[in-house]
Amino acid sequence: MKRISANEAENIFTIAAELAEAAREVTLLHFRKKDLRADNKELTRFDPVTVADRLSETRMREILAQRRPADGILGEEFGPVTGTSGLTWVLDPIDGTRGYLSGTPTWGVLISVCDSLGPIYGIIDQPYIRERFEGGLGRALVTGPSGIAPLRCRAARPLDEAILFSTFPEVGTPEEGAAFRRVAEQTKLVRYGADCYAYALLATGMIDLVIEAGLQAYDVQAPIAVIEAAGGIMTDWQGRSCHNGGRVLAAANAEIHAKALALLNT
Amino acid sequence: MKRISANEAENIFTIAAELAEAAREVTLLHFRKKDLRADNKELTRFDPVTVADRLSETRMREILAQRRPADGILGEEFGPVTGTSGLTWVLDPIDGTRGYLSGTPTWGVLISVCDSLGPIYGIIDQPYIRERFEGGLGRALVTGPSGIAPLRCRAARPLDEAILFSTFPEVGTPEEGAAFRRVAEQTKLVRYGADCYAYALLATGMIDLVIEAGLQAYDVQAPIAVIEAAGGIMTDWQGRSCHNGGRVLAAANAEIHAKALALLNT
Repeated sequence: MKRISANEAENIFTIAAELAEAAREVTLLHFRKKDLRADNKELTRFDPVTVADRLSETRMREILAQRRPADGILGEEFGPVTGTSGLTWVLDPIDGTRGYLSGTPTWGVLISVCDSLGPIYGIIDQPYIRERFEGGLGRALVTGPSGIAPLRCRAARPLDEAILFSTFPEVGTPEEGAAFRRVAEQTKLVRYGADCYAYALLATGMIDLVIEAGLQAYDVQAPIAVIEAAGGIMTDWQGRSCHNGGRVLAAANAEIHAKALALLNT
Repeated sequence: MKRISANEAENIFTIAAELAEAAREVTLLHFRKKDLRADNKELTRFDPVTVADRLSETRMREILAQRRPADGILGEEFGPVTGTSGLTWVLDPIDGTRGYLSGTPTWGVLISVCDSLGPIYGIIDQPYIRERFEGGLGRALVTGPSGIAPLRCRAARPLDEAILFSTFPEVGTPEEGAAFRRVAEQTKLVRYGADCYAYALLATGMIDLVIEAGLQAYDVQAPIAVIEAAGGIMTDWQGRSCHNGGRVLAAANAEIHAKALALLNT
Protein backbone atom coordinates (compact mmCIF):
# COMPACT_ATOMS: atom_id res chain seq x y z
CA MET A 1 0.00 0.00 0.00
CA LYS A 2 1.32 3.39 -1.02
CA ARG A 3 1.06 6.43 1.27
CA ILE A 4 -0.58 9.37 -0.50
CA SER A 5 0.21 12.89 0.74
CA ALA A 6 -2.38 15.67 0.62
CA ASN A 7 -0.48 17.25 -2.27
CA GLU A 8 -0.39 13.96 -4.13
CA ALA A 9 -4.12 13.48 -3.57
CA GLU A 10 -4.82 16.95 -4.96
CA ASN A 11 -2.72 16.14 -8.00
CA ILE A 12 -4.62 12.89 -8.53
CA PHE A 13 -7.97 14.74 -8.29
CA THR A 14 -6.75 17.28 -10.85
CA ILE A 15 -5.42 14.77 -13.35
CA ALA A 16 -8.45 12.50 -12.96
CA ALA A 17 -10.71 15.47 -13.72
CA GLU A 18 -8.63 16.25 -16.81
CA LEU A 19 -9.02 12.67 -17.98
CA ALA A 20 -12.76 12.76 -17.36
CA GLU A 21 -13.15 16.04 -19.25
CA ALA A 22 -11.17 14.67 -22.22
CA ALA A 23 -13.23 11.47 -22.25
CA ARG A 24 -16.47 13.42 -21.93
CA GLU A 25 -15.63 15.50 -24.98
CA VAL A 26 -14.63 12.52 -27.12
CA THR A 27 -17.47 10.19 -26.15
CA LEU A 28 -20.06 12.91 -26.82
CA LEU A 29 -18.61 13.45 -30.31
CA HIS A 30 -20.22 10.17 -31.37
CA PHE A 31 -23.08 9.78 -28.89
CA ARG A 32 -26.48 9.87 -30.64
CA LYS A 33 -24.80 11.15 -33.80
CA LYS A 34 -25.59 10.22 -37.40
CA ASP A 35 -22.69 7.80 -37.66
CA LEU A 36 -24.38 5.73 -34.95
CA ARG A 37 -27.38 5.45 -37.23
CA ALA A 38 -25.29 4.13 -40.08
CA ASP A 39 -27.15 1.50 -42.03
CA ASN A 40 -26.53 -2.19 -41.76
CA LYS A 41 -23.72 -2.49 -44.30
CA GLU A 42 -21.80 0.38 -42.81
CA LEU A 43 -22.20 -1.00 -39.30
CA THR A 44 -20.26 -4.11 -40.25
CA ARG A 45 -17.34 -1.96 -41.46
CA PHE A 46 -17.56 0.86 -38.94
CA ASP A 47 -18.18 0.44 -35.24
CA PRO A 48 -18.67 3.89 -33.74
CA VAL A 49 -18.46 2.54 -30.21
CA THR A 50 -15.00 1.22 -30.91
CA VAL A 51 -14.02 4.53 -32.51
CA ALA A 52 -15.25 6.51 -29.49
CA ASP A 53 -13.79 3.95 -27.06
CA ARG A 54 -10.33 4.03 -28.60
CA LEU A 55 -10.17 7.77 -29.14
CA SER A 56 -11.31 8.37 -25.56
CA GLU A 57 -8.72 6.00 -24.09
CA THR A 58 -5.99 7.36 -26.38
CA ARG A 59 -6.66 10.90 -25.17
CA MET A 60 -6.54 9.77 -21.54
CA ARG A 61 -3.28 7.87 -22.08
CA GLU A 62 -1.71 10.94 -23.71
CA ILE A 63 -2.58 13.05 -20.68
CA LEU A 64 -1.19 10.44 -18.29
CA ALA A 65 2.05 10.07 -20.31
CA GLN A 66 2.62 13.79 -19.95
CA ARG A 67 1.31 14.44 -16.44
CA ARG A 68 1.88 11.17 -14.55
CA PRO A 69 4.70 9.41 -16.47
CA ALA A 70 5.75 7.26 -13.49
CA ASP A 71 2.31 5.64 -13.08
CA GLY A 72 1.15 2.44 -14.73
CA ILE A 73 -1.95 2.16 -16.96
CA LEU A 74 -4.51 -0.64 -17.32
CA GLY A 75 -7.14 0.14 -19.94
CA GLU A 76 -9.79 -1.76 -21.87
CA GLU A 77 -8.63 -0.90 -25.37
CA PHE A 78 -4.80 -1.05 -25.36
CA GLY A 79 -2.01 -2.96 -23.64
CA PRO A 80 -0.94 -2.32 -20.05
CA VAL A 81 1.78 0.20 -19.17
CA THR A 82 4.00 -0.75 -16.22
CA GLY A 83 4.84 2.15 -13.95
CA THR A 84 7.47 2.82 -11.28
CA SER A 85 5.40 4.83 -8.78
CA GLY A 86 3.35 2.00 -7.31
CA LEU A 87 0.18 3.57 -8.69
CA THR A 88 -1.78 2.39 -11.73
CA TRP A 89 -4.59 4.19 -13.57
CA VAL A 90 -7.43 1.87 -14.55
CA LEU A 91 -9.52 3.14 -17.47
CA ASP A 92 -12.76 2.07 -19.12
CA PRO A 93 -13.44 4.71 -21.79
CA ILE A 94 -17.06 3.58 -22.30
CA ASP A 95 -18.62 1.22 -19.76
CA GLY A 96 -22.00 0.09 -21.07
CA THR A 97 -21.48 0.08 -24.82
CA ARG A 98 -24.98 -1.33 -25.41
CA GLY A 99 -26.43 1.62 -23.51
CA TYR A 100 -24.18 3.99 -25.45
CA LEU A 101 -25.34 2.48 -28.75
CA SER A 102 -28.98 2.75 -27.65
CA GLY A 103 -28.73 6.38 -26.58
CA THR A 104 -29.57 5.80 -22.90
CA PRO A 105 -27.88 8.16 -20.40
CA THR A 106 -26.63 5.32 -18.17
CA TRP A 107 -23.27 4.35 -19.73
CA GLY A 108 -20.21 5.98 -18.25
CA VAL A 109 -16.50 6.65 -18.29
CA LEU A 110 -14.69 4.81 -15.48
CA ILE A 111 -11.39 6.19 -14.21
CA SER A 112 -9.59 4.98 -11.11
CA VAL A 113 -6.20 4.81 -9.43
CA CYS A 114 -5.02 1.71 -7.59
CA ASP A 115 -2.04 0.67 -5.52
CA SER A 116 -1.00 -2.91 -4.81
CA LEU A 117 -4.01 -3.43 -2.52
CA GLY A 118 -6.69 -2.11 -4.86
CA PRO A 119 -8.45 1.09 -5.91
CA ILE A 120 -7.81 4.20 -3.81
CA TYR A 121 -9.81 6.72 -5.86
CA GLY A 122 -12.35 6.46 -8.65
CA ILE A 123 -14.68 8.40 -10.94
CA ILE A 124 -17.93 7.31 -12.58
CA ASP A 125 -18.67 10.00 -15.17
CA GLN A 126 -21.89 10.28 -17.21
CA PRO A 127 -20.96 12.68 -20.02
CA TYR A 128 -24.43 13.35 -21.47
CA ILE A 129 -25.98 14.32 -18.12
CA ARG A 130 -22.72 16.08 -17.17
CA GLU A 131 -22.74 14.18 -13.92
CA ARG A 132 -19.64 12.96 -12.08
CA PHE A 133 -19.48 10.67 -9.05
CA GLU A 134 -16.12 10.44 -7.29
CA GLY A 135 -14.87 8.69 -4.21
CA GLY A 136 -11.65 7.97 -2.32
CA LEU A 137 -8.68 9.85 -0.80
CA GLY A 138 -11.15 11.65 1.46
CA ARG A 139 -13.68 12.52 -1.22
CA ALA A 140 -17.23 11.22 -1.74
CA LEU A 141 -19.28 13.55 -3.89
CA VAL A 142 -21.42 13.98 -6.98
CA THR A 143 -21.26 17.01 -9.26
CA GLY A 144 -24.11 17.32 -11.74
CA PRO A 145 -27.28 19.10 -12.89
CA SER A 146 -28.34 19.74 -9.28
CA GLY A 147 -24.96 21.03 -8.12
CA ILE A 148 -22.56 19.31 -5.73
CA ALA A 149 -23.72 16.88 -3.05
CA PRO A 150 -22.05 14.36 -0.75
CA LEU A 151 -22.35 10.65 -1.57
CA ARG A 152 -23.71 8.42 1.16
CA CYS A 153 -25.09 4.90 0.86
CA ARG A 154 -28.45 4.30 2.51
CA ALA A 155 -28.92 2.70 5.92
CA ALA A 156 -29.81 -0.95 6.45
CA ARG A 157 -33.39 -2.03 5.71
CA PRO A 158 -35.09 -5.41 5.34
CA LEU A 159 -34.47 -7.20 2.06
CA ASP A 160 -38.17 -6.98 1.20
CA GLU A 161 -37.81 -3.18 1.22
CA ALA A 162 -34.66 -3.20 -0.91
CA ILE A 163 -34.04 -2.18 -4.54
CA LEU A 164 -31.71 -4.41 -6.59
CA PHE A 165 -30.11 -3.48 -9.93
CA SER A 166 -28.40 -5.61 -12.55
CA THR A 167 -27.56 -5.01 -16.19
CA PHE A 168 -29.39 -7.95 -17.78
CA PRO A 169 -32.12 -10.31 -16.62
CA GLU A 170 -29.89 -13.05 -18.06
CA VAL A 171 -27.15 -12.80 -15.43
CA GLY A 172 -24.08 -14.90 -16.30
CA THR A 173 -24.32 -18.70 -16.45
CA PRO A 174 -27.54 -20.60 -15.59
CA GLU A 175 -26.06 -21.29 -12.13
CA GLU A 176 -25.21 -17.61 -11.63
CA GLY A 177 -28.67 -16.64 -12.87
CA ALA A 178 -30.29 -18.96 -10.32
CA ALA A 179 -28.20 -17.44 -7.51
CA PHE A 180 -29.16 -13.93 -8.66
CA ARG A 181 -32.84 -14.84 -8.68
CA ARG A 182 -32.66 -16.17 -5.11
CA VAL A 183 -31.78 -12.63 -4.02
CA ALA A 184 -34.05 -10.89 -6.55
CA GLU A 185 -37.14 -12.78 -5.36
CA GLN A 186 -36.68 -11.44 -1.84
CA THR A 187 -36.39 -7.76 -2.81
CA LYS A 188 -39.07 -5.12 -3.28
CA LEU A 189 -37.94 -4.06 -6.73
CA VAL A 190 -35.50 -5.29 -9.40
CA ARG A 191 -34.43 -2.99 -12.21
CA TYR A 192 -32.27 -3.72 -15.25
CA GLY A 193 -30.36 -1.82 -17.89
CA ALA A 194 -28.61 0.86 -15.85
CA ASP A 195 -25.01 -0.07 -16.79
CA CYS A 196 -22.40 1.48 -14.46
CA TYR A 197 -24.96 4.09 -13.41
CA ALA A 198 -26.36 1.47 -11.03
CA TYR A 199 -23.18 1.74 -8.90
CA ALA A 200 -23.56 5.52 -8.85
CA LEU A 201 -27.17 5.15 -7.63
CA LEU A 202 -25.95 2.85 -4.85
CA ALA A 203 -23.42 5.50 -3.77
CA THR A 204 -26.08 8.24 -3.80
CA GLY A 205 -28.21 6.24 -1.36
CA MET A 206 -31.03 5.51 -3.84
CA ILE A 207 -30.71 1.72 -4.10
CA ASP A 208 -29.48 -1.15 -1.94
CA LEU A 209 -27.82 -3.79 -4.11
CA VAL A 210 -26.10 -4.32 -7.46
CA ILE A 211 -25.34 -7.91 -8.50
CA GLU A 212 -23.45 -8.77 -11.67
CA ALA A 213 -21.21 -11.45 -13.15
CA GLY A 214 -18.52 -11.70 -15.79
CA LEU A 215 -16.94 -8.31 -15.14
CA GLN A 216 -13.37 -7.13 -15.80
CA ALA A 217 -10.99 -5.22 -13.52
CA TYR A 218 -11.63 -1.97 -15.41
CA ASP A 219 -15.43 -2.45 -14.93
CA VAL A 220 -15.23 -2.63 -11.14
CA GLN A 221 -12.34 -0.58 -9.77
CA ALA A 222 -13.88 2.89 -10.09
CA PRO A 223 -17.23 1.66 -8.67
CA ILE A 224 -15.39 0.04 -5.75
CA ALA A 225 -13.64 3.31 -4.88
CA VAL A 226 -16.84 5.37 -5.15
CA ILE A 227 -19.01 2.91 -3.22
CA GLU A 228 -16.49 2.34 -0.41
CA ALA A 229 -16.06 6.12 -0.05
CA ALA A 230 -19.85 6.41 0.31
CA GLY A 231 -19.89 3.80 3.09
CA GLY A 232 -20.89 0.79 1.00
CA ILE A 233 -19.30 -2.61 0.39
CA MET A 234 -18.33 -4.29 -2.87
CA THR A 235 -17.03 -7.87 -2.97
CA ASP A 236 -17.27 -10.99 -5.07
CA TRP A 237 -19.99 -13.58 -4.38
CA GLN A 238 -17.81 -15.15 -1.68
CA GLY A 239 -17.30 -11.88 0.20
CA ARG A 240 -13.69 -11.56 -0.99
CA SER A 241 -11.98 -8.76 -2.90
CA CYS A 242 -13.39 -8.25 -6.41
CA HIS A 243 -10.68 -5.92 -7.71
CA ASN A 244 -10.08 -8.17 -10.68
CA GLY A 245 -13.75 -8.35 -11.67
CA GLY A 246 -15.73 -11.57 -12.03
CA ARG A 247 -18.89 -11.94 -9.94
CA VAL A 248 -19.74 -8.77 -8.07
CA LEU A 249 -22.01 -7.93 -5.13
CA ALA A 250 -22.24 -4.24 -4.26
CA ALA A 251 -24.25 -3.33 -1.17
CA ALA A 252 -25.26 -0.16 0.65
CA ASN A 253 -24.24 -1.52 4.06
CA ALA A 254 -22.85 -4.56 5.87
CA GLU A 255 -26.25 -5.90 6.95
CA ILE A 256 -27.79 -6.16 3.50
CA HIS A 257 -24.47 -7.34 2.07
CA ALA A 258 -24.52 -10.28 4.48
CA LYS A 259 -28.14 -11.14 3.63
CA ALA A 260 -27.53 -11.09 -0.11
CA LEU A 261 -24.28 -13.04 0.26
CA ALA A 262 -26.08 -15.77 2.18
CA LEU A 263 -28.76 -16.11 -0.50
CA LEU A 264 -26.22 -16.16 -3.34
CA ASN A 265 -24.58 -19.14 -1.64
CA THR A 266 -27.67 -21.02 -0.46
CA MET B 1 -61.06 16.49 -35.54
CA LYS B 2 -60.45 20.07 -34.50
CA ARG B 3 -58.71 22.57 -36.81
CA ILE B 4 -55.81 24.26 -35.05
CA SER B 5 -54.70 27.68 -36.30
CA ALA B 6 -51.06 28.77 -36.19
CA ASN B 7 -51.90 31.09 -33.30
CA GLU B 8 -53.65 28.32 -31.43
CA ALA B 9 -50.67 26.00 -31.98
CA GLU B 10 -48.31 28.66 -30.62
CA ASN B 11 -50.52 29.04 -27.56
CA ILE B 12 -50.54 25.27 -27.02
CA PHE B 13 -46.71 25.19 -27.26
CA THR B 14 -46.47 28.01 -24.72
CA ILE B 15 -48.90 26.52 -22.21
CA ALA B 16 -47.43 23.03 -22.57
CA ALA B 17 -43.98 24.45 -21.84
CA GLU B 18 -45.37 26.20 -18.74
CA LEU B 19 -46.85 22.92 -17.55
CA ALA B 20 -43.58 21.11 -18.17
CA GLU B 21 -41.59 23.76 -16.28
CA ALA B 22 -43.97 23.58 -13.32
CA ALA B 23 -43.82 19.77 -13.26
CA ARG B 24 -40.04 19.82 -13.58
CA GLU B 25 -39.71 22.06 -10.55
CA VAL B 26 -42.07 20.02 -8.39
CA THR B 27 -40.81 16.56 -9.35
CA LEU B 28 -37.20 17.61 -8.69
CA LEU B 29 -38.17 18.83 -5.20
CA HIS B 30 -38.43 15.19 -4.12
CA PHE B 31 -36.17 13.40 -6.60
CA ARG B 32 -33.17 11.80 -4.84
CA LYS B 33 -33.95 13.79 -1.72
CA LYS B 34 -33.67 12.63 1.90
CA ASP B 35 -37.39 11.98 2.21
CA LEU B 36 -36.97 9.32 -0.47
CA ARG B 37 -34.46 7.65 1.83
CA ALA B 38 -36.88 7.62 4.73
CA ASP B 39 -36.57 4.45 6.70
CA ASN B 40 -39.01 1.61 6.49
CA LYS B 41 -41.51 2.82 9.07
CA GLU B 42 -41.73 6.25 7.56
CA LEU B 43 -42.16 4.84 4.07
CA THR B 44 -45.41 3.22 5.10
CA ARG B 45 -46.78 6.58 6.24
CA PHE B 46 -45.24 8.81 3.60
CA ASP B 47 -45.02 8.03 -0.09
CA PRO B 48 -42.89 10.71 -1.71
CA VAL B 49 -43.77 9.53 -5.20
CA THR B 50 -47.44 10.13 -4.50
CA VAL B 51 -46.63 13.51 -2.96
CA ALA B 52 -44.60 14.56 -6.00
CA ASP B 53 -47.16 13.06 -8.40
CA ARG B 54 -50.09 14.87 -6.87
CA LEU B 55 -48.34 18.18 -6.37
CA SER B 56 -47.06 18.10 -9.95
CA GLU B 57 -50.48 17.35 -11.42
CA THR B 58 -52.16 19.92 -9.15
CA ARG B 59 -49.79 22.62 -10.37
CA MET B 60 -50.46 21.70 -13.99
CA ARG B 61 -54.23 21.71 -13.45
CA GLU B 62 -54.03 25.15 -11.84
CA ILE B 63 -52.21 26.51 -14.88
CA LEU B 64 -54.74 24.95 -17.26
CA ALA B 65 -57.71 26.27 -15.26
CA GLN B 66 -56.31 29.76 -15.63
CA ARG B 67 -54.87 29.65 -19.13
CA ARG B 68 -57.00 27.12 -21.01
CA PRO B 69 -60.32 27.03 -19.08
CA ALA B 70 -62.33 25.68 -22.04
CA ASP B 71 -60.18 22.55 -22.45
CA GLY B 72 -60.78 19.22 -20.78
CA ILE B 73 -58.24 17.42 -18.55
CA LEU B 74 -57.46 13.72 -18.17
CA GLY B 75 -54.81 13.07 -15.52
CA GLU B 76 -53.49 10.10 -13.59
CA GLU B 77 -54.05 11.46 -10.10
CA PHE B 78 -57.40 13.27 -10.11
CA GLY B 79 -60.80 13.00 -11.83
CA PRO B 80 -61.40 14.08 -15.43
CA VAL B 81 -62.47 17.62 -16.33
CA THR B 82 -64.87 17.91 -19.27
CA GLY B 83 -64.12 20.84 -21.58
CA THR B 84 -66.06 22.71 -24.25
CA SER B 85 -63.27 23.41 -26.75
CA GLY B 86 -62.94 19.92 -28.21
CA LEU B 87 -59.39 19.67 -26.82
CA THR B 88 -58.29 17.68 -23.78
CA TRP B 89 -54.97 17.82 -21.93
CA VAL B 90 -53.69 14.39 -20.94
CA LEU B 91 -51.24 14.44 -18.02
CA ASP B 92 -48.99 11.89 -16.36
CA PRO B 93 -47.06 13.84 -13.70
CA ILE B 94 -44.50 11.04 -13.17
CA ASP B 95 -44.35 8.22 -15.69
CA GLY B 96 -42.01 5.53 -14.37
CA THR B 97 -42.48 5.81 -10.62
CA ARG B 98 -40.17 2.83 -10.02
CA GLY B 99 -37.42 4.63 -11.92
CA TYR B 100 -38.16 7.82 -9.99
CA LEU B 101 -37.92 5.95 -6.68
CA SER B 102 -34.64 4.34 -7.78
CA GLY B 103 -33.02 7.58 -8.88
CA THR B 104 -32.61 6.65 -12.56
CA PRO B 105 -32.87 9.53 -15.06
CA THR B 106 -35.39 7.70 -17.29
CA TRP B 107 -38.77 8.53 -15.73
CA GLY B 108 -40.60 11.50 -17.22
CA VAL B 109 -43.45 13.95 -17.20
CA LEU B 110 -45.94 13.26 -20.00
CA ILE B 111 -48.08 16.11 -21.30
CA SER B 112 -50.27 15.95 -24.38
CA VAL B 113 -53.27 17.50 -26.07
CA CYS B 114 -55.85 15.43 -27.90
CA ASP B 115 -58.95 16.03 -29.97
CA SER B 116 -61.67 13.47 -30.66
CA LEU B 117 -59.35 11.48 -32.95
CA GLY B 118 -56.34 11.28 -30.61
CA PRO B 119 -53.23 13.16 -29.56
CA ILE B 120 -52.19 16.15 -31.69
CA TYR B 121 -49.19 17.33 -29.65
CA GLY B 122 -47.12 15.84 -26.85
CA ILE B 123 -44.13 16.34 -24.57
CA ILE B 124 -41.88 13.76 -22.91
CA ASP B 125 -39.88 15.72 -20.34
CA GLN B 126 -36.97 14.37 -18.28
CA PRO B 127 -36.56 16.92 -15.48
CA TYR B 128 -33.22 15.74 -14.04
CA ILE B 129 -31.40 15.78 -17.40
CA ARG B 130 -33.32 18.94 -18.35
CA GLU B 131 -34.28 17.27 -21.60
CA ARG B 132 -37.57 17.77 -23.44
CA PHE B 133 -38.85 15.85 -26.45
CA GLU B 134 -41.86 17.36 -28.21
CA GLY B 135 -43.84 16.45 -31.30
CA GLY B 136 -46.97 17.45 -33.18
CA LEU B 137 -48.58 20.58 -34.74
CA GLY B 138 -45.54 20.88 -37.00
CA ARG B 139 -42.92 20.34 -34.30
CA ALA B 140 -40.53 17.43 -33.79
CA LEU B 141 -37.58 18.41 -31.64
CA VAL B 142 -35.51 17.72 -28.54
CA THR B 143 -34.10 20.42 -26.28
CA GLY B 144 -31.49 19.28 -23.80
CA PRO B 145 -27.87 19.22 -22.65
CA SER B 146 -26.62 19.21 -26.26
CA GLY B 147 -28.90 22.03 -27.41
CA ILE B 148 -31.83 21.75 -29.82
CA ALA B 149 -32.06 19.05 -32.48
CA PRO B 150 -34.78 17.69 -34.76
CA LEU B 151 -36.38 14.35 -33.92
CA ARG B 152 -36.34 11.74 -36.66
CA CYS B 153 -36.94 8.00 -36.32
CA ARG B 154 -34.36 5.77 -37.95
CA ALA B 155 -34.75 4.14 -41.36
CA ALA B 156 -35.84 0.53 -41.85
CA ARG B 157 -33.31 -2.21 -41.10
CA PRO B 158 -33.54 -5.98 -40.72
CA LEU B 159 -34.98 -7.20 -37.42
CA ASP B 160 -31.67 -8.86 -36.54
CA GLU B 161 -30.06 -5.40 -36.60
CA ALA B 162 -32.79 -3.82 -34.47
CA ILE B 163 -32.80 -2.60 -30.85
CA LEU B 164 -35.93 -3.33 -28.79
CA PHE B 165 -36.84 -1.72 -25.47
CA SER B 166 -39.40 -2.67 -22.83
CA THR B 167 -39.81 -1.70 -19.20
CA PHE B 168 -39.72 -5.16 -17.60
CA PRO B 169 -38.57 -8.58 -18.73
CA GLU B 170 -41.87 -9.80 -17.27
CA VAL B 171 -44.11 -8.20 -19.92
CA GLY B 172 -47.81 -8.47 -19.05
CA THR B 173 -49.54 -11.87 -18.89
CA PRO B 174 -47.73 -15.15 -19.72
CA GLU B 175 -49.34 -15.02 -23.19
CA GLU B 176 -48.21 -11.40 -23.71
CA GLY B 177 -44.74 -12.33 -22.48
CA ALA B 178 -44.52 -15.16 -25.00
CA ALA B 179 -45.54 -12.80 -27.82
CA PHE B 180 -42.95 -10.25 -26.68
CA ARG B 181 -40.23 -12.90 -26.65
CA ARG B 182 -41.07 -13.99 -30.20
CA VAL B 183 -40.04 -10.48 -31.32
CA ALA B 184 -37.20 -10.12 -28.80
CA GLU B 185 -35.49 -13.33 -29.96
CA GLN B 186 -35.20 -11.95 -33.50
CA THR B 187 -33.59 -8.64 -32.55
CA LYS B 188 -29.93 -7.69 -32.07
CA LEU B 189 -30.38 -6.18 -28.64
CA VAL B 190 -33.12 -6.00 -25.97
CA ARG B 191 -32.88 -3.44 -23.17
CA TYR B 192 -35.10 -2.98 -20.12
CA GLY B 193 -35.77 -0.35 -17.50
CA ALA B 194 -35.94 2.84 -19.58
CA ASP B 195 -39.52 3.84 -18.64
CA CYS B 196 -40.97 6.50 -20.98
CA TYR B 197 -37.44 7.45 -22.04
CA ALA B 198 -37.58 4.46 -24.42
CA TYR B 199 -40.19 6.28 -26.55
CA ALA B 200 -37.95 9.35 -26.63
CA LEU B 201 -35.03 7.21 -27.83
CA LEU B 202 -37.24 5.82 -30.59
CA ALA B 203 -38.08 9.37 -31.69
CA THR B 204 -34.40 10.40 -31.67
CA GLY B 205 -33.58 7.58 -34.10
CA MET B 206 -31.52 5.55 -31.62
CA ILE B 207 -33.70 2.43 -31.33
CA ASP B 208 -36.22 0.57 -33.49
CA LEU B 209 -38.98 -0.85 -31.30
CA VAL B 210 -40.73 -0.43 -27.95
CA ILE B 211 -43.20 -3.13 -26.90
CA GLU B 212 -45.27 -2.88 -23.72
CA ALA B 213 -48.56 -4.07 -22.23
CA GLY B 214 -51.01 -2.90 -19.58
CA LEU B 215 -50.64 0.82 -20.27
CA GLN B 216 -53.13 3.64 -19.63
CA ALA B 217 -54.22 6.47 -21.94
CA TYR B 218 -52.00 8.94 -20.06
CA ASP B 219 -48.99 6.63 -20.52
CA VAL B 220 -49.25 6.55 -24.31
CA GLN B 221 -50.70 9.78 -25.70
CA ALA B 222 -47.60 11.98 -25.39
CA PRO B 223 -45.35 9.22 -26.80
CA ILE B 224 -47.77 8.74 -29.72
CA ALA B 225 -47.63 12.45 -30.62
CA VAL B 226 -43.82 12.59 -30.33
CA ILE B 227 -43.18 9.37 -32.25
CA GLU B 228 -45.65 10.14 -35.06
CA ALA B 229 -44.12 13.62 -35.45
CA ALA B 230 -40.70 11.95 -35.79
CA GLY B 231 -41.97 9.66 -38.57
CA GLY B 232 -42.64 6.57 -36.44
CA ILE B 233 -45.73 4.45 -35.84
CA MET B 234 -47.41 3.51 -32.57
CA THR B 235 -50.36 1.09 -32.45
CA ASP B 236 -51.73 -1.71 -30.34
CA TRP B 237 -50.69 -5.33 -31.01
CA GLN B 238 -53.38 -5.60 -33.71
CA GLY B 239 -52.15 -2.53 -35.59
CA ARG B 240 -55.10 -0.42 -34.41
CA SER B 241 -55.15 2.88 -32.52
CA CYS B 242 -53.69 2.62 -29.02
CA HIS B 243 -54.83 6.03 -27.72
CA ASN B 244 -56.49 4.38 -24.76
CA GLY B 245 -53.40 2.38 -23.77
CA GLY B 246 -53.32 -1.40 -23.37
CA ARG B 247 -50.80 -3.34 -25.46
CA VAL B 248 -48.46 -1.03 -27.34
CA LEU B 249 -46.09 -1.48 -30.28
CA ALA B 250 -44.02 1.59 -31.16
CA ALA B 251 -41.83 1.34 -34.25
CA ALA B 252 -39.36 3.55 -36.08
CA ASN B 253 -40.92 2.87 -39.48
CA ALA B 254 -43.67 0.95 -41.27
CA GLU B 255 -41.41 -1.93 -42.35
CA ILE B 256 -40.21 -2.91 -38.88
CA HIS B 257 -43.67 -2.26 -37.46
CA ALA B 258 -45.12 -4.83 -39.87
CA LYS B 259 -42.43 -7.39 -39.00
CA ALA B 260 -42.93 -7.01 -35.25
CA LEU B 261 -46.72 -7.07 -35.61
CA ALA B 262 -46.55 -10.34 -37.53
CA LEU B 263 -44.40 -11.97 -34.83
CA LEU B 264 -46.62 -10.71 -32.00
CA ASN B 265 -49.55 -12.47 -33.69
CA THR B 266 -47.83 -15.65 -34.86
